[in-house]
Order: sequence, then C-alpha cells, then structure tokens
Amino acid sequence: MTIHYPNGQSPVPGQAAAKATPGPTSFADRGMTLEAEINASNDYYLATGQAVIHKKPTPIQLVKVDYPKRSAAVVREAYFRRPSTTDYNGIYRGYYIDFDAKETRNKASFPLKNFHQHQIDHLAACLKQGGICFAFIKFTRLDKHFLLPASDLIAHWQAQATGGKHSIPLAVIEQTGVPVAYGYHPRLKYLPAVDQLIARQKGAASNEQ
Amino acid sequence: MTIHYPNGQSPVPGQAAAKATPGPTSFADRGMTLEAEINASNDYYLATGQAVIHKKPTPIQLVKVDYPKRSAAVVREAYFRRPSTTDYNGIYRGYYIDFDAKETRNKASFPLKNFHQHQIDHLAACLKQGGICFAFIKFTRLDKHFLLPASDLIAHWQAQATGGKHSIPLAVIEQTGVPVAYGYHPRLKYLPAVDQLIARQKGAASNEQ
Repeated sequence: MTIHYPNGQSPVPGQAAAKATPGPTSFADRGMTLEAEINASNDYYLATGQAVIHKKPTPIQLVKVDYPKRSAAVVREAYFRRPSTTDYNGIYRGYYIDFDAKETRNKASFPLKNFHQHQIDHLAACLKQGGICFAFIKFTRLDKHFLLPASDLIAHWQAQATGGKHSIPLAVIEQTGVPVAYGYHPRLKYLPAVDQLIARQKGAASNEQ
Repeated sequence: MTIHYPNGQSPVPGQAAAKATPGPTSFADRGMTLEAEINASNDYYLATGQAVIHKKPTPIQLVKVDYPKRSAAVVREAYFRRPSTTDYNGIYRGYYIDFDAKETRNKASFPLKNFHQHQIDHLAACLKQGGICFAFIKFTRLDKHFLLPASDLIAHWQAQATGGKHSIPLAVIEQTGVPVAYGYHPRLKYLPAVDQLIARQKGAASNEQ
C-alpha cells in the first residue's frame, strides 16, 4: 500500500525531503493541524470574552545567544526541551482548564504512547487541585474529535502496568469522552464539551459528599 | 559605590563578560533573582501537592533549525518574541492563578513601565473569568515582596491616561497589596498571601450580590 502524504506525494528519502515533510518516524509536527484549529478557536474565545486559554511556548534550552549592537538578540545554538506540563491551560467560567492535544491516524483506538509519564503526572496534580483536565483527541482519518476526561486517561494509563491495553478503543472514548462538534465560529466549538465535563465533575464531587 | 554581582565580582567589560553578566542597561535578566525564588517556591508547592503553578517558557521565533542525522534538532537562528500573556499561571485550591513577577530597584515606588499593555489586557481578561490575578512585586533594595491585586494595578495603569502617576507609591502598595514573607521551605512563602487575595475577592463578589 502506498501512503500519500498531505501534499499528495509519497515521501522522498534524503535530507531535504526530511526537512520539508518529516517521515513517519518524526514526531515533530504531530498534532500540528489539530493545534492550529485549537489555537484559532482559542483566539475566537479570547476575542469574544468567553475564555482565556493559550498554548504554552515550546521550551528551548539556550546554548549560545549573540547580542549584536543596535539590533535584537539572536539565538545561535539551542535545543528543544521536553515540556514538563501539558500544552494548553487557562481559565473558563472561573474554572482552571488544562489539556493536551493529540492526533492519531488510527481508526479503531487511541495509542497511549502519545502521552508521557510527566504529562500524566501533571494532569493528575491539576485534577487533585480541582481543575478541569482532559485530552483533546483527534482521529484524523475519521475527522472525529473528543475531549477525554483526564481521570479516564489516567485510569487507562495505570492499567497498562498491570497488563492493560496500550491503547483506548474508539468505542470506549465514544462512551466516556465528549464529542466536539465542528462549527463556523469557531470551527472547533469545544467549550460546550468543556461545559459537559464541568457538569460531570461537579456531579461526581457532590456524590462523594 | 562598587556593585558586586552575585558571583562576587564586579562586571568586566567586553563581549564575553556581556554574555555572562549583562550590564545594567540589559533587560534580559531583569527579575531573574525573583524568578529563581518563585520557581523554587513553585517546585516546593508542586512536590508537596499544594499547588500546580509553572513559569511559561519564553516564546521564541524559529528561523533556522538543523536536523543532523542521528542527533537532536539544533536551533541555528531564532529570536525572542514578546510574550502575549503573563509569565506564571496554574491552579491552587480550585482557583485559577495568574501573575507576572517584577523587580524594581526603586525604594519609594513601583514604575508602571515595568508592565506592557498586553499583560494588562491579559490580567483583565483572566480577572473577568474569575481568576486570582496579581503582580508579584519585589523591591530589591528593600528586600520587600508584595502581591498587588490585578484590579489595583489596572486602576493605576488606566489612571495614567488621564494624568495619573506613572508609578505606584510604596505606601499605596503596602496598603492595597499583601506582603509575602520569607520562610525556610519554601523561601518565598507566597500561598498564604494568595489565600488573602482569594478571601478578599470572594468578599467583594458576595458584596456585589
């Protein structure tokens, strides 16, 4: 089977091609499309005063910075660092919102290897403080989006250690997650799905009392 | 008077020295000491499960990135971008926390030029959503720290446009802000001051009803 990449061409081996269209082993721009969509939604929500949610900048380890006279500092050597938190956070209706955006080309399940231990730990810590935490998952080939509550994600993550599956079946995500609908403004209308997560979390909290 | 820098040496002029210890006209590491102290406090609060508050990475505009074979990507040309938000945010006791850290060497007042319009706008937007927002101000030569509520900061900022002062007198900050005490673990014990801001904001909200 020949896999055709978004530009409609098969990947060409070699240095130049690797830069322009990273092959299947590169994770550099995984989730880029979803990120762009979420960023546009966040811009809209910010402009309309509905929520203040931002993507955090990618952390960079600076090694060499030049300070030319009368012009801006130039980074000459730096490396990408692994973030210690999730990519997105902010505030909505008084609630602390925290999530990471992940895409998968799978059609039947979401592979847990998309997450790292430190992200799971971060989500668990925010959840403990009463935050609204989730994974924003896109099944790219199905064009389906879901908010999966962090509590469910963490349960599946932990189950791996005791022989659980390394992925979450789509059917499970359809049951425990909340679907995100496409709209016009914004295109990815995800705050109504967040409203459902808030209602659910408040319901769970009052049941515990 | 000879000013001795943290390494105990006077600054030496020249390119190499400029890199290691930027002179007094550089704004690159303004607030570095306060930032280091806050970061250490945040690490402690995270480790002890009291709060999840992080400094956001500095946004960088990438221009040239090399992808050497079999080794990590290297940034070869990049520039610092002005952040569109404040430096710190997170969650504490279910509350969204948002602040910026600013140092001044002044002894009698805090100059408002330490802030930029976009930071004021961001704090106002977060405040509208019900966040606990403030400026974490250090008077370095007095070794005094305060949390100044964002609502006060914004009021002073806006007053400038109609002939108000360009700085906030220390006496005013001592009245409207909350002092932060030095402790042992963590050294900058600022969550008790945040507790006071939360109580004050909740009181104001219930008075409005």
